[in-house]
Amino acid sequence: MPFFSLTQVSRITGGQLSGDPEIRVRGVAPLDTAGPEELSLVAGHRYLSYVHATKAAAVLVSESLSREVPGAVARVVVPDPHVALTQLLPVLYPEPKVEPSVHPTAVLEGGVVLGNRVAIGAYTVVEEGSHLGDDVRIGAHVMISRGCEVGSATVIHPHVTLYPGVRIGARCLVRSGARLGSDGFGHAWMDGQHRKIPQVGGCVIEDDVEIGANTTIDRGSIGDTTVGRGTKIDNLVQIGHNCRLGRHVIIVSQVGISGSTTIDDGAVIGGQVGIVGHITVGAGAKVGAQAGVIGDVAPGSTVSGYPARPHKEAMRASAALQRLPGLMERIGRIERAVFPNKTP
Amino acid sequence: MPFFSLTQVSRITGGQLSGDPEIRVRGVAPLDTAGPEELSLVAGHRYLSYVHATKAAAVLVSESLSREVPGAVARVVVPDPHVALTQLLPVLYPEPKVEPSVHPTAVLEGGVVLGNRVAIGAYTVVEEGSHLGDDVRIGAHVMISRGCEVGSATVIHPHVTLYPGVRIGARCLVRSGARLGSDGFGHAWMDGQHRKIPQVGGCVIEDDVEIGANTTIDRGSIGDTTVGRGTKIDNLVQIGHNCRLGRHVIIVSQVGISGSTTIDDGAVIGGQVGIVGHITVGAGAKVGAQAGVIGDVAPGSTVSGYPARPHKEAMRASAALQRLPGLMERIGRIERAVFPNKTP
Amino acid sequence: MPFFSLTQVSRITGGQLSGDPEIRVRGVAPLDTAGPEELSLVAGHRYLSYVHATKAAAVLVSESLSREVPGAVARVVVPDPHVALTQLLPVLYPEPKVEPSVHPTAVLEGGVVLGNRVAIGAYTVVEEGSHLGDDVRIGAHVMISRGCEVGSATVIHPHVTLYPGVRIGARCLVRSGARLGSDGFGHAWMDGQHRKIPQVGGCVIEDDVEIGANTTIDRGSIGDTTVGRGTKIDNLVQIGHNCRLGRHVIIVSQVGISGSTTIDDGAVIGGQVGIVGHITVGAGAKVGAQAGVIGDVAPGSTVSGYPARPHKEAMRASAALQRLPGLMERIGRIERAVFPNKTP
Repeated sequence: MPFFSLTQVSRITGGQLSGDPEIRVRGVAPLDTAGPEELSLVAGHRYLSYVHATKAAAVLVSESLSREVPGAVARVVVPDPHVALTQLLPVLYPEPKVEPSVHPTAVLEGGVVLGNRVAIGAYTVVEEGSHLGDDVRIGAHVMISRGCEVGSATVIHPHVTLYPGVRIGARCLVRSGARLGSDGFGHAWMDGQHRKIPQVGGCVIEDDVEIGANTTIDRGSIGDTTVGRGTKIDNLVQIGHNCRLGRHVIIVSQVGISGSTTIDDGAVIGGQVGIVGHITVGAGAKVGAQAGVIGDVAPGSTVSGYPARPHKEAMRASAALQRLPGLMERIGRIERAVFPNKTP
Repeated sequence: MPFFSLTQVSRITGGQLSGDPEIRVRGVAPLDTAGPEELSLVAGHRYLSYVHATKAAAVLVSESLSREVPGAVARVVVPDPHVALTQLLPVLYPEPKVEPSVHPTAVLEGGVVLGNRVAIGAYTVVEEGSHLGDDVRIGAHVMISRGCEVGSATVIHPHVTLYPGVRIGARCLVRSGARLGSDGFGHAWMDGQHRKIPQVGGCVIEDDVEIGANTTIDRGSIGDTTVGRGTKIDNLVQIGHNCRLGRHVIIVSQVGISGSTTIDDGAVIGGQVGIVGHITVGAGAKVGAQAGVIGDVAPGSTVSGYPARPHKEAMRASAALQRLPGLMERIGRIERAVFPNKTP
Repeated sequence: MPFFSLTQVSRITGGQLSGDPEIRVRGVAPLDTAGPEELSLVAGHRYLSYVHATKAAAVLVSESLSREVPGAVARVVVPDPHVALTQLLPVLYPEPKVEPSVHPTAVLEGGVVLGNRVAIGAYTVVEEGSHLGDDVRIGAHVMISRGCEVGSATVIHPHVTLYPGVRIGARCLVRSGARLGSDGFGHAWMDGQHRKIPQVGGCVIEDDVEIGANTTIDRGSIGDTTVGRGTKIDNLVQIGHNCRLGRHVIIVSQVGISGSTTIDDGAVIGGQVGIVGHITVGAGAKVGAQAGVIGDVAPGSTVSGYPARPHKEAMRASAALQRLPGLMERIGRIERAVFPNKTP
């Protein structure tokens, strides 16, 4: 790993250097584990207490936090340290080149169309009629069922399953173990048993979408399940049949969304949230971690708790709940004063 | 995809046609996305508002809802539109024929017994002594460990793992990434560390069971984990060791059931529910989404919340909680009136 | 399966025999399903009611519970029946010998180093530069990406993915479908979209760790995600980037831990718990199932509920909540008495 001077770091990030420009780093690490050849970052107030003891050669820090960092600490002041990381890390840690090639053990059935510079890993299976765009990179042990489409420069990690007819846009990232287009969970009670309703809809993922490890996105029952452009989905998430996710939505780990629910553009859904079916979470809404959403959420609002309601109300109710045992004693005292002759 | 007339639709579903019998459809889609060559359905009151604007050629609708659908809309009136879908979709969307064959890359170890017309996908491994019944269809990349049994006409999707000795009945469906018969989570504290208790029980799945993508069902520690006939399990569910699930149980996505718990026939467990170990959820009980069940649930009852309790109580308590901050102010006013000389 | 006399059972477990020493067993089963050739155990008071009807040949039982078991029941009295199982089950159910061999279909890239007696299953891929220690056993369809290290005697089940550079210690067990070292979920908002922050840290698993089926452990963004020696993680758990788990921690199924959180030695995290990022759960702390932890947890404390707080407080508040509707009626009565002229 080559060294970079702080001058180079400030040039790459567009930041302002304060300290010895000849200081050289060759990696980035958290404040408490960084060594003298590493750069670190101050990501928030919480981390200021680590700055004094850090062995890091220098830090990335925002202008407002920079004032609270001791003067002796070399630094590159940037508008947003996380944005700076997106610029810096690809330079300090260049990804190994993947030679575009199809592993000899890959199984490509008839009618498969490959773009230019496609890489396909060992033991991957691409069934008949699937199309992979230019610069697509498919890992090992991936199953691409018949009639799928994968857009250019999309990366699919090992052990992913695309069910038949799944369509993925360009520049997407699908992490290991994700299952796209699996049958939804729909049954009708007939003749004394639950009978499966055939799931004949599709699963459509637009451009620039990220899908987490072991996440499952069901195909539509009739009509499609859709994920809008730029939406990012974390690990172990469940998206039910016929859900429609808008653009630039964030879905944190272990969220479950029941069938036919719409999540509008820019909404942020916290970890382990559950959302019932057939509702709409409005554009830009924020749903707090572990909330249980059982009705529509207004655009731009912030909700939490179970059942989910405006976050401030939920917090107030939660705080009041803690005081409830004491409240009961107070009410007992009042009753004894007001109804002195009453047997409790 | 061929066309079907409404006359054919009404014959297939046993429904009553109202409108031009010559109208032809070749697919089914939701009201808001259906085109003029597609049939749709009115699945509940919530969807009535979409009927006016739909471009669908006709709708499936129940008798009671049909009265609220404008007279101009062609329709087939059926007792239950979802039941009608189970009849109609296999005709409109016939599944592609899978030729029964064993892919040349599949590894079949010694002593494997295959029934008639078995299909096995690329790179699937079937270890020694496993038995697959007639018409079994196994996808690609499946691992069937030694000594498993798979009943006739059962379908196993890609990337499923059956651990040693798992027994699956007939006509089951196991979706991609499910892990059946994995070691349960059992330890004893010995010599300053958690030591694994060997998990030597089995995992037995009866007929007509459906298991969701990336769901995990642990084998018994001693004795078996069992799933009864006709039970349907959604994606990302965890079933602990020695659980006993009855018949026709519904388990929605992301449910977790701890070890040695019994779920009796016909119970319905909502999404993200957690159930502690060593208890019983009675026959026909309903557990609301996200509930935390920490004790036995009576047969036929409906519970919700954490800790789970009768649903009506939980709703009433939840509503009261919202009024709690206001209640506190009222109590303050009372106290000032009743104890005027008391310092607050 | 050979038979063992109760004399042998008591010798293996170091227990005290009470009953006919010639009784022979050849398996262990729960009280209610055990047959006359099987041993069972009384694992707690809850199971005493099953002892009268059991057909088991004998039981393992602790000294304190033994007094409540009818005298006619043959038994081996041990300090802890679960510890006894760890001694007894490997003898009664010996694991089939796995001949150390590399399956001819396994793909081993250049620079892979294998220790002695390594077993590698069918279709497993080991990328360049990975090192596997002595007695390592890798199942079928496993993906070990470039530059990984797997310590001696570690067992990896089918369909596991190790992302590049993952380091696993000795004697670990990784169950099917686990994803170790996947990219963490980190984005910066730039140019009107969420842009992925490269995840360049590592994923380090120490000795004697157990990782459940379909669990995901993300690599660090910068710096490492670490799991300490002897820690046991159940199925379908999510561990975010840069988490630091201490030693001998227990993480039950479906827990989600957000990025940069520390779980100290010996903590026990119940099923479906959610823990926010950037906090510390102290050594030996216990977090009740389904809790939502939004701040530091003191060492040795027990917390539950959402937001998580000391368990006794949470239980008291929860109990009070149930009485709240009745409380409201009492307050109404008081108000009518204290403010008789006020319109409600």
